[in-house]
Amino acid sequence: MTFYDWYNEHVRLIVDNRYKLKGALVWTPYGFKMQRLVYNKLRALLESTGHQETRFPLMIPETQLQKEKEHVKGFNSEVYWVTHGGSSKLEEKLALRPTSETVIYPMFALWIRSHADLPLKIFQIVNTFRYETKHTRPLIRDREITFFKEAHCAHANQKQAQQEMDSIEKTYKEFFDALCTPYYIVKRPAWDRFPGAEETVAFDQVMPNGKTLQIATSHNLGTGFSKMFEITYEQEDGSHNHPVLTCHGISGRCIAGLISAHGDERGLVLPPEFAPVQIAVVPVIFKNKEDPTKTAEKVFDSIKERWRAVIDKTDETPGAKYYRWEQQGVPIRVELGPREVKENKALLVRRDTGEKKSVALSSLDKELEKLAKNITETMHEKAWEKQKSLTKKATNPKQLKDGFTYEVEVCSEECAKNLEEKLEYRGNIVGKKAKGKCIACGKPAKSVGLMSNAY
Amino acid sequence: MTFYDWYNEHVRLIVDNRYKLKGALVWTPYGFKMQRLVYNKLRALLESTGHQETRFPLMIPETQLQKEKEHVKGFNSEVYWVTHGGSSKLEEKLALRPTSETVIYPMFALWIRSHADLPLKIFQIVNTFRYETKHTRPLIRDREITFFKEAHCAHANQKQAQQEMDSIEKTYKEFFDALCTPYYIVKRPAWDRFPGAEETVAFDQVMPNGKTLQIATSHNLGTGFSKMFEITYEQEDGSHNHPVLTCHGISGRCIAGLISAHGDERGLVLPPEFAPVQIAVVPVIFKNKEDPTKTAEKVFDSIKERWRAVIDKTDETPGAKYYRWEQQGVPIRVELGPREVKENKALLVRRDTGEKKSVALSSLDKELEKLAKNITETMHEKAWEKQKSLTKKATNPKQLKDGFTYEVEVCSEECAKNLEEKLEYRGNIVGKKAKGKCIACGKPAKSVGLMSNAY
Repeated sequence: MTFYDWYNEHVRLIVDNRYKLKGALVWTPYGFKMQRLVYNKLRALLESTGHQETRFPLMIPETQLQKEKEHVKGFNSEVYWVTHGGSSKLEEKLALRPTSETVIYPMFALWIRSHADLPLKIFQIVNTFRYETKHTRPLIRDREITFFKEAHCAHANQKQAQQEMDSIEKTYKEFFDALCTPYYIVKRPAWDRFPGAEETVAFDQVMPNGKTLQIATSHNLGTGFSKMFEITYEQEDGSHNHPVLTCHGISGRCIAGLISAHGDERGLVLPPEFAPVQIAVVPVIFKNKEDPTKTAEKVFDSIKERWRAVIDKTDETPGAKYYRWEQQGVPIRVELGPREVKENKALLVRRDTGEKKSVALSSLDKELEKLAKNITETMHEKAWEKQKSLTKKATNPKQLKDGFTYEVEVCSEECAKNLEEKLEYRGNIVGKKAKGKCIACGKPAKSVGLMSNAY
Repeated sequence: MTFYDWYNEHVRLIVDNRYKLKGALVWTPYGFKMQRLVYNKLRALLESTGHQETRFPLMIPETQLQKEKEHVKGFNSEVYWVTHGGSSKLEEKLALRPTSETVIYPMFALWIRSHADLPLKIFQIVNTFRYETKHTRPLIRDREITFFKEAHCAHANQKQAQQEMDSIEKTYKEFFDALCTPYYIVKRPAWDRFPGAEETVAFDQVMPNGKTLQIATSHNLGTGFSKMFEITYEQEDGSHNHPVLTCHGISGRCIAGLISAHGDERGLVLPPEFAPVQIAVVPVIFKNKEDPTKTAEKVFDSIKERWRAVIDKTDETPGAKYYRWEQQGVPIRVELGPREVKENKALLVRRDTGEKKSVALSSLDKELEKLAKNITETMHEKAWEKQKSLTKKATNPKQLKDGFTYEVEVCSEECAKNLEEKLEYRGNIVGKKAKGKCIACGKPAKSVGLMSNAY
C-alpha cells in the first residue's frame, strides 16, 4: 500500500472530499472535533504570548490587493475573483483572500498611532482560497483552505520584530511537540520566500514517502508593506516611523502532518490530547458466560468526566468493535470480558503499540493517566525516529534521489540552487552548523541545508 | 440621541466598520471575545440536543444553487458570483454561499442510506454573503455575515420534523433567555417564508425604535429539497422515501439585539455570562492618603480564576476609569479606596442600575455570585418590560404607526396583508389566542398577529 493509498483511505474520517468542487472539503463531525482540539491548542499558545483573536473580512478590493508589488506577483495567478453581485457587474472586482496582509494592514493604519500601541499582535483562523492548478490533495493542497491560522504583528523596530520571530518559533515548537509531529526548522532561500518577505522561516515535516510538507511559516516583512499601506507611529521623540511587520501561518496541513506521522496499516493513530474519542470501553460478550455490560457501564460512568470516552454497546463481534475504534485512532481501548469482571480488572489496549495490560479496576484512574502520558511520549519518539530514518546525509549530488530527504552542507544559496535537479533546496536548517565541504563546489561549507521533494 | 446614533457609536467596540468594503466588518479583540461567549453558548445548547458541528465549503457551483426553483428565486438577486481563477474564466461560475442548503444536501444524499441514519442533525457557524442593495448596518444588515449558525436536519417523516421544530424553538428560547434578550415567536405568513420552506417560525425582537429585528428562524422544508437533491432512505419495510428537511438559523443579529436590548446612554450593558470582562477592579487613589493598589491587587488575584476580571492600574482619574469600564458594559466594578482598605471592605458598583453596595472582603466571593445572578435577572426583566412598553394593542388600522410594534387580531393572512400600509405583517404570534374581532374585516378573529416595521 503506497502512502497515498493509505492517506486517501484514512483522511476520509476527517474530511469528505466528494463535494462537487475540486479542492473543497466537508469536515465530518469527527474531523471537526479533532480540528477544534488542535486549533484550540494553537489558540491557547498564541493567547498566552499576547496575541489577540480577531476576525477580518474575506473579500479584498482589487486595488488594495495590488498595493505591494512582490506580494501581488506571488498570488495573482491563484486568486479567485468575484465580479458580480446578483446580475450587476461590480464597480471593482473583489478577491477572495489568499492570505490577509492586504485586508489587515489598512486597519493597522487606522489603529496604530503611537509607540505605545506596539507591538500589536493579532490573529485569526479563517478560510482562505487558492485557485490551485496543481493536483489537489485533501488538507495538503486545497482550493479552499478551511482553517488557516494567520497571526499578524506590527513592531516598533527590527529588534522587536526579531523577538516575535523567535517567540513564534518557540510557540510552533510547543505546538508540534504536543501533536508529536516531527519537523525541521528551515530558513527559506531568497527565491522561496513569502511574496514580500525579507525573511521566511518554515517548519518542514518529512512525510512517509520522503517528501517534505511545509506545516508552518513565519515571515519578517520589514517595512515594505507598512510603507505601501501608510502605517506610521509616533516615536518617543515625536518623530514618525513605519513599523516592522511580521506574519505567521499554520494551515490544515498541520492535521495532514499529524495523521501521516502516526498512522499505521490499521488506520489513524492519535495522541490522546487531540483524539475526539480518547477511550473506547468495550464489553466483550461470550455466549453462556456472564454479561460484562453492567460493569462496563460503571467503568464508563466513572471515567467519562475526565476523558472523552464512549462505550460500545453494539451487538457486533468483538473483532468488528476493535476494528472500528482502531481505525479511528482511539488511543486506549478498555476491554471488559467475563474474566475481567470476575477478577475486578480491566484490560487496557493501547492503539499505538497494540500492547495489552491487565489492571485492577481500583487503580484504573491512575493507570489511564500513566498510559496516556506514555502513549504521547512513545508517539513523539517514534515519529521523530521515523523522520530520522527518512532523512539521509549526502556529500555527493549523485546520492540525491526521490524517496528521501537529505541534509547537505553548502557554502551559499547559489551553490544550493545548482543542486536542484531531482530535489528542491528547502533552505538552511536553523541551528545546525556545517563542518565539511560544500556538496556542490567543494569549498568550505557555511550551512547545513535540507533537500527534498516538497508538497 | 436617536437609537441609530447610540447604536453606531457603541457597536464600534465590537466591530470596526471602516474597512473599505461596504457591509464587511472587522471584529475587534473585544467583540471577538464576546462573540465567542455568545456562540459557545449556542454551540453547547445545540450539542446537548444531539446536533453535531461540521464545516462545509463556501462556494456553490451555479447548477447546484439553482436546483430548487423557489430557493433560487429568493436568493438570486443577492448572490455574489466568482467567475475567474487567476486570469482564467471558470468553466462554471461559483456562488458565495448566501445560506448552505444547496451545499449540504448533495452530501446528505451521499450520507443518508437508511432510517437508522435519521434524524441526521448537523450545524455549522460560518461566514455567508448577501449582495445587499439596501442600506447596510453593522450586524443588522451586512454583506458578509461573519457568524451565521445554520443547523440542517433530515427526518424520517413530518412527525420527526415537527419534533425538531419544537426542540429548536425550546433551544432558541433558552439561548435568548440567557442573553436576556426579549422576543416574540411568530409564524411567518406564506409570502414571507424562507425560499423553499413550507413553514417558517421566527423570533422577532422589538428594538428601541419600535421596529422588529428577526433574530432567529426555523424552517420546515418538507420534501421539496430532498426530491430535487435526490436524497432517499430505506424505510423499515425496505421501500424508499424522501426525508423531510428542516433548517434553523441565527446570525450576528443576535449580538445586535443583545446590545440594543440593554444599552444605555453611557454605553454597553452586558449580562455577566457574555461579558468579555465581567469585573473591573479599580483602586481609587487620593493624594496624601494610603494607596489602595496593593489591596486591589490581592482582591484581583483572589477573583481572577473564577471571573474574567481586570485590574485598572492606569494613572487616569477615577472618573476616566469608571467611564471606560461603563462604556464597555462591564457588569461589576469593584472599587477600593483608602476607606475600603481601612474597613476591609470593597464597594461593588453594578453597571445595569448603577447601585452601589459596600461589602466585607471576607464575603466578597459570595456577594459577587449573588450580584451577578441578580444583574442577570434584573436585565432580563427590564428588557422584557421595555419590549412590552414598545408593543401596543391595535383594534383599528388607523392606530398603526411607526415607532411601535402592534399586536392585532386577524381572521386570515389575507386580511392581515390588507393592513400592510404603514407597517408589515410579521405573522401570527405562536401560543397566543384571539378573543375578539379581525382588525381588518370585523369578522371573528382566529389568531393574534404582530405588525411592525422590520429590519
